[in-house]
Amino acid sequence: MAALKINSERLNSMLKSTCTSWGALGAPSTGMSRLTLTQEDKKVRDWLIGECKALGCEVRIDQMGNIFAIRPGTAKDKKPIAMGSHLDTQPTGGRYDGILGVHAALEVLCTLHENQVETYCPIALIDWTNEEGARFPGAMMASGVWSTKSSTPLEACWGIQDKEGVSMKQALEDIAYLGSTPCDYRENGLESHFELHIEQGPLLERANKTVGVVTSVQGMKWYAVQVTGAGGHSGTTPMLDRSDALVATSRLITAVRDTARKTELGVATVGVITCDTYSQATIPARVDFIMDIRCSTDEMVDQLATTIFKTFDTIIKEENNGTSYEIKRTWGLPKSIFHPQCIEAVRASALKEVSENQIMDMKSRAGHDSAWTSRVCPTSMIFVPSKDGISHNPNEYTSPEHCALGAQILLQAVLGYDEKVRKGDY
Amino acid sequence: MAALKINSERLNSMLKSTCTSWGALGAPSTGMSRLTLTQEDKKVRDWLIGECKALGCEVRIDQMGNIFAIRPGTAKDKKPIAMGSHLDTQPTGGRYDGILGVHAALEVLCTLHENQVETYCPIALIDWTNEEGARFPGAMMASGVWSTKSSTPLEACWGIQDKEGVSMKQALEDIAYLGSTPCDYRENGLESHFELHIEQGPLLERANKTVGVVTSVQGMKWYAVQVTGAGGHSGTTPMLDRSDALVATSRLITAVRDTARKTELGVATVGVITCDTYSQATIPARVDFIMDIRCSTDEMVDQLATTIFKTFDTIIKEENNGTSYEIKRTWGLPKSIFHPQCIEAVRASALKEVSENQIMDMKSRAGHDSAWTSRVCPTSMIFVPSKDGISHNPNEYTSPEHCALGAQILLQAVLGYDEKVRKGDY
Repeated sequence: MAALKINSERLNSMLKSTCTSWGALGAPSTGMSRLTLTQEDKKVRDWLIGECKALGCEVRIDQMGNIFAIRPGTAKDKKPIAMGSHLDTQPTGGRYDGILGVHAALEVLCTLHENQVETYCPIALIDWTNEEGARFPGAMMASGVWSTKSSTPLEACWGIQDKEGVSMKQALEDIAYLGSTPCDYRENGLESHFELHIEQGPLLERANKTVGVVTSVQGMKWYAVQVTGAGGHSGTTPMLDRSDALVATSRLITAVRDTARKTELGVATVGVITCDTYSQATIPARVDFIMDIRCSTDEMVDQLATTIFKTFDTIIKEENNGTSYEIKRTWGLPKSIFHPQCIEAVRASALKEVSENQIMDMKSRAGHDSAWTSRVCPTSMIFVPSKDGISHNPNEYTSPEHCALGAQILLQAVLGYDEKVRKGDY
Repeated sequence: MAALKINSERLNSMLKSTCTSWGALGAPSTGMSRLTLTQEDKKVRDWLIGECKALGCEVRIDQMGNIFAIRPGTAKDKKPIAMGSHLDTQPTGGRYDGILGVHAALEVLCTLHENQVETYCPIALIDWTNEEGARFPGAMMASGVWSTKSSTPLEACWGIQDKEGVSMKQALEDIAYLGSTPCDYRENGLESHFELHIEQGPLLERANKTVGVVTSVQGMKWYAVQVTGAGGHSGTTPMLDRSDALVATSRLITAVRDTARKTELGVATVGVITCDTYSQATIPARVDFIMDIRCSTDEMVDQLATTIFKTFDTIIKEENNGTSYEIKRTWGLPKSIFHPQCIEAVRASALKEVSENQIMDMKSRAGHDSAWTSRVCPTSMIFVPSKDGISHNPNEYTSPEHCALGAQILLQAVLGYDEKVRKGDY
């Protein structure tokens, strides 16, 4: 089994081919814009299912459009060991975030198929729907539903609308991916879940390492902040008479960054902002923005949020001009702890490919579908380096060698885990 | 002639009636959303033309949709003395900005008609198209074309598009207001131009005065600022590695306000902002905003702009993280000086209605169509108080008494000016 090798050339050329065909921003950029459940997403899904069926997989589509492609094992009573990730991207994302994980899983299935490997457990490839939450707000949406641990259950997710007012359910129907398999781990369960992903940060590269063994996912919370002032004419309202919601917002956003830097508790970001006026001659009366906070522990998330809100209070008091703010919690993912058995399977697999000093245990600073699966089945992840730590950006890049290394470790981790189950160890 | 009085009840009830009928935001608000060249605007224009024709006026529509309703005078070789303003509003504006000026002009025509007054010059009512620039960017657009002094001439204005991609020319055609009269003062000229308007600021109210004799319009310039950073993942990019365009923008916007306050040179406002990301998990790579600067003199505008840009440079240097900014001048209106004869006509008229201590000479801090007409014909304006100085806001309010006072002063100013022309003084 040690001799089993994925095909790097096949993996990388196939990844390039699908990214060029469906959702590419266009040369010279290798950037992607493949929003979930669009026609581009449908095309790559259709292609994926065709490939998996050709490899002898049974394909199930669940109620959230998640694709489960299952290669049978010899055991008749075992659930699949899964390799999951996602094919959707940010509006201006890259070609590796999520996509690499699904392609690596397909490459593992190809390798098993061409080597006629008989596994004990069934082996599944999963494409999770709407991981990015970029079209339908709510990241890792469909794995959250599947885990039944998300605060947004199936019916609520179906009702969420995109900017054009299209509901998730409608979008699933529009591309014929509203499946009948229950989106519920209790009815369509897994033995375990592995995910290869790019790091999306600079830590592996800086430490000059090539493999991250992911042991946890940091906690994260989003807050919707609404700042209210008073409108007025930009020419006639004296500076000292203004209650300018955008100036107040600007001070709050600066404080978000400064507080995160100062406390060193984690990261805090404002990415989405909308201002109520589109006429230049009007002083903004209302601004809405979303603040994203992520820290190693849930306690640190709350501590950073509390510290930021205290600076908000100080700023609004200083402004002393009638501006005010309100906060609403909109989304969160508590810290996720990965499973020792899966972590061990990844580490053992990595050690077969690279020397120990190339490997680093790390937490994931981004959310992933594995964060949800880890709540209901043993889970871990493999990270490979991101050039300059860049992600969610057309300049996202991971070398073909690192992509192949990740896929190879995924293969061995799955086989290693399967072997433990076969032996009755897990 | 001293006995000639406008009808306050008719003026105020008609203003209320048209505002309730066409473009109202709806009770309990008295706010308006009557964007230029929309169906609401068409309906109020159609109504206005009907009223003017019933009063014996000749109506001309020019190439920018400006409505000239002209009541004949006895002199055959004189151009009209005009009373102009606008019927369009901001997206969430009030019922007095512009609208009062047109209604007052109509009330003057009614008063002249029912008293069978024969003026020497023709008397014109003008509804100027797209004063607000809220639908088609570029405030006071059509009076600018008419004056031939605007940097955006007829064909360029026709090509300007609204947010839905409808061109100005198309919009004019859509509501049948693309007229054939040349939009050019040299071919469709005026003897002089008077405009009644609400102050839109708090100065009259604070000084406990009721009439502003407007002697000038302050200079104003708009700048488009583009801030560039680098995108990235909000979870994985360490705080110190970020080049966050929105944080940099926030510091710049705060500096715009603080610099205007500190220098006391004038007012500076950021009203429109767009951020390139609509996915929360992404660090903004690009933000665009528009800065509006207005001061008593053009030199002060430039001085305030220069001081603000210096603080921008300091901030970007402090950020020291790869963010940068670029500036483009987008629109401007140099200071406008009104004509002594028109100013005198307004002052003399005001003195017939109120005691001298009720009257204040003032500059206009907002742009008005009169700023453009003043460049090609004698012009002045009358201001009446705005409650709490609020404008461009549904809470905009001017009392019926002040509306009537303004209309009465407009009537007498026009008649006084006409008398001077008749006598050969002007």
